[in-house]
Amino acid sequence: MNKKGLAILMRTKMRPLPPAAIKRVNQMEVPPQENSNVVSSTPNASINPPRDFEQVRDSMHSAILMNKTEILDAALSEFCEGYFSLSKENRRKLLLTLAREYDLDRIQVRELMKQYLGLELPIGEKAQHSSGQQEELSLSAFYRIERNLRHALKPNYEVLFERLNTHPGGLKFLSDIRADILSFLAEENFPSLRALDSYLKEKLGTWLSPANLELHNITWDDPASLLEKIVAYEAVHPISSLLDLKRRLGVGRRCFGYLHPAIPGEPLIFIEVALMKDVAETIQEVLWDDPPIPECEATSALFYSISSTQPGLSGINLGKFLIKRVIDVVKKDMPIISIFATLSPIPGYMQWLLSKLASSEISGPTFRENLLKQEEEGALVDAAVEFSSSKNGMEVMKYLLTSTNYEWTKSAKIISVLRPPMMRLCARYLLQEKKRGKALDSVANFHLQNGAMIGRLNWMADRSEKGLTQSGGIMVNYIYRVENIEENAHSYYSKGHIQATSDVSCFVEETCWS
Amino acid sequence: MNKKGLAILMRTKMRPLPPAAIKRVNQMEVPPQENSNVVSSTPNASINPPRDFEQVRDSMHSAILMNKTEILDAALSEFCEGYFSLSKENRRKLLLTLAREYDLDRIQVRELMKQYLGLELPIGEKAQHSSGQQEELSLSAFYRIERNLRHALKPNYEVLFERLNTHPGGLKFLSDIRADILSFLAEENFPSLRALDSYLKEKLGTWLSPANLELHNITWDDPASLLEKIVAYEAVHPISSLLDLKRRLGVGRRCFGYLHPAIPGEPLIFIEVALMKDVAETIQEVLWDDPPIPECEATSALFYSISSTQPGLSGINLGKFLIKRVIDVVKKDMPIISIFATLSPIPGYMQWLLSKLASSEISGPTFRENLLKQEEEGALVDAAVEFSSSKNGMEVMKYLLTSTNYEWTKSAKIISVLRPPMMRLCARYLLQEKKRGKALDSVANFHLQNGAMIGRLNWMADRSEKGLTQSGGIMVNYIYRVENIEENAHSYYSKGHIQATSDVSCFVEETCWS
Repeated sequence: MNKKGLAILMRTKMRPLPPAAIKRVNQMEVPPQENSNVVSSTPNASINPPRDFEQVRDSMHSAILMNKTEILDAALSEFCEGYFSLSKENRRKLLLTLAREYDLDRIQVRELMKQYLGLELPIGEKAQHSSGQQEELSLSAFYRIERNLRHALKPNYEVLFERLNTHPGGLKFLSDIRADILSFLAEENFPSLRALDSYLKEKLGTWLSPANLELHNITWDDPASLLEKIVAYEAVHPISSLLDLKRRLGVGRRCFGYLHPAIPGEPLIFIEVALMKDVAETIQEVLWDDPPIPECEATSALFYSISSTQPGLSGINLGKFLIKRVIDVVKKDMPIISIFATLSPIPGYMQWLLSKLASSEISGPTFRENLLKQEEEGALVDAAVEFSSSKNGMEVMKYLLTSTNYEWTKSAKIISVLRPPMMRLCARYLLQEKKRGKALDSVANFHLQNGAMIGRLNWMADRSEKGLTQSGGIMVNYIYRVENIEENAHSYYSKGHIQATSDVSCFVEETCWS
Repeated sequence: MNKKGLAILMRTKMRPLPPAAIKRVNQMEVPPQENSNVVSSTPNASINPPRDFEQVRDSMHSAILMNKTEILDAALSEFCEGYFSLSKENRRKLLLTLAREYDLDRIQVRELMKQYLGLELPIGEKAQHSSGQQEELSLSAFYRIERNLRHALKPNYEVLFERLNTHPGGLKFLSDIRADILSFLAEENFPSLRALDSYLKEKLGTWLSPANLELHNITWDDPASLLEKIVAYEAVHPISSLLDLKRRLGVGRRCFGYLHPAIPGEPLIFIEVALMKDVAETIQEVLWDDPPIPECEATSALFYSISSTQPGLSGINLGKFLIKRVIDVVKKDMPIISIFATLSPIPGYMQWLLSKLASSEISGPTFRENLLKQEEEGALVDAAVEFSSSKNGMEVMKYLLTSTNYEWTKSAKIISVLRPPMMRLCARYLLQEKKRGKALDSVANFHLQNGAMIGRLNWMADRSEKGLTQSGGIMVNYIYRVENIEENAHSYYSKGHIQATSDVSCFVEETCWS
């Protein structure tokens, strides 16, 4: 290792991120709802003296109402610091104060609406799209009130958001308080806070528009302060050592991050890519120590990890743009690479399957849905005769899957009889199980909204404890075809359509429920 | 000159910007309205084949309605290229089509308004700010319709703006079409186009938020492609040669620009700074060849030129943030520097003064306002006896100021009698003459809205032909006091208050109109 490498090594070892400061949301792994524990991890809590609620509330009022430059900057800084010194309870109280006291002026909104409804629509407008100069002029009053209404519909707390956005560190702070807001809302529904969240989310989405983000090819030559972020936030396949990190940035691999000028040295989201001959079927193929092929022989780019570092940006989809940009860059750099795919976990599969098997038991024989085909049931009961005397295939399946230490994975026979129903039901889970019209599985939802299609299910692709618990060891390749990304994303978003290769969809189509 | 410097020199000399591509708007010099000539200078017009109106209109429709990634990108590129191949007349037609056909849906807006007005305001809301959980819930319906209304009030052309913003080169294109829109509106009022402009301006303002801009210290080590932009856009004190440019980036001077990641290598606005012992009184003191003092002795930073490069960003004030950031950077770098000021032209003074003198002639003796004090009038008539036999001071003044070749500047006697009324009336012009509540002078308006105060008037500070024509050679120092910037800007914006030192305001206060 060269001198610089050693220096980075030492620095990273000497200054690890404090565990409490490491916030993880990984779009491949953790659904956004699960970040409620984020609240306790506050960047400055240990450094700054605690302040009481009234102090911080007053600095918030000042930050909104002040106009003197130096005092304003001081008030904003004071508010940011003070906020994180508050208890969770007081932070919620403060955010509710903000949402309620700096709401919009409904009296004014109603007044403008009455004026608007009093205007006569020009004839052309009623009959759609006209362009006469006369009608142009008669629309002037509409344009004016529409503009005023747009402004009147902005809540007063927008001032605070705008000011924080141009305040050093303010954008990051806004993302941090949104993480708080989301966790409060997960506990209890406050309509005013939900309205504030939806407004803040939209503002953050505008400020973090891809046009404002810089794609950075993260390499071993980057500052250690940036690399330590990668180590801290990588949650899909944790980085075990500095050598591991160096390999992930080395030959046969790439790492790209999106950076925002106002949050320097901290990628908002990053993606790890492996250059391969074929699309990997198991995670072992990807986590190599030495590259299996020279880079020039690679024809596939495999996205094996995408990590988002900011829980407060939940729902703001940076992944789609990042993936598109990365595909562009890789294609330009290595034109021979023509396949872009992921190797992804299916975090919700086993939970769904086990609850299906359990509810089937409760429903009783008349109403229960038999998840298994006749031949699958027969094979299962026969093969498992030494473990279970039950003649009910679903009972046997549940028994096997919940056995301690994943006993079932130690018998080739059991593995082979579990495979057909497990794969078929996994395809059903990914393709057909939805929540509010979107894929139930959080990682599937992430890639589908980015415009990917479901490409292939891989049996026994991740035999780690986590892999077996989450998905019975199955992993899935999502495929990104540049020419279809936007179209897929749109039809998924608007109609819930899920694109899949015939390899996967035939699992579901051939199904006949007995 | 070193080898690199020479290379830059040659490159810049060999590849000057074509005159047509040089668009200048200088906030110190040219009021924003004057960019109507911009329309003829279109970046790609000469390279791309001309397209007819229908072709480009169709690509615009596609760019708004398409969802297929590759086609969408192609449609956006096609639209951008096609737009600039159109004649001015067709571009106007196209923008009007956009404004009218992709307007908002007024039927839907009215429907939402009726729903909203049908809701009962909770009692607490009428009596201002309440916080009960019950009222929270009753507000849910308001929050919902407000959010829907915010969306319904977005015109449909927003899709195009949003898509262009994330399309390579799209942000610059949006700024270019806004320059067109402004010039069309200057010629004729189209309410629909004005509404589109106001909407686009707001979007651009959000995307170009200072948090998204990077402050770059422009030096002789920057790429020639960036430096040639400085040469092209510097309009206050044109850069005469590469040596001149090198000096402006050399010892005793600084140059800072704001760059946006989506418009690389082209500062949106830049400022030139001279490090001085005292605040300069004349432009000669600033345009030195060799620095008059070592940098370490400097206690003032003089902003001698601010140039905005994008006419399409008119009305989006980047200057205020740039100046604030530059003051921060300079202060940090050289703590001994405590004074931040400009040396600025007063472009509208002579025009105003001469029209005042002329209207006074027309009004006749009864109604005319005597601009001169008795002693000023006496001194003028006496001193100018060899040029004019008139006993009317204002007639004499007008005669002298309009004499060919600025004859008046050649006589010390005439200069000395013109000085008191010229300085006094200049103070009046800057402090009291307004248009819609804002300073009539465009440069004054620029600095006042940035939060500066008027510091000192300088007699015979710019004896160039331009200086004499615009302001009788007077220049003004605007002073930026960090602690007052926000406060001054706010009180100017909201009440039209103009801050000035007593040196300047006493000119006006001691006045008694005869």
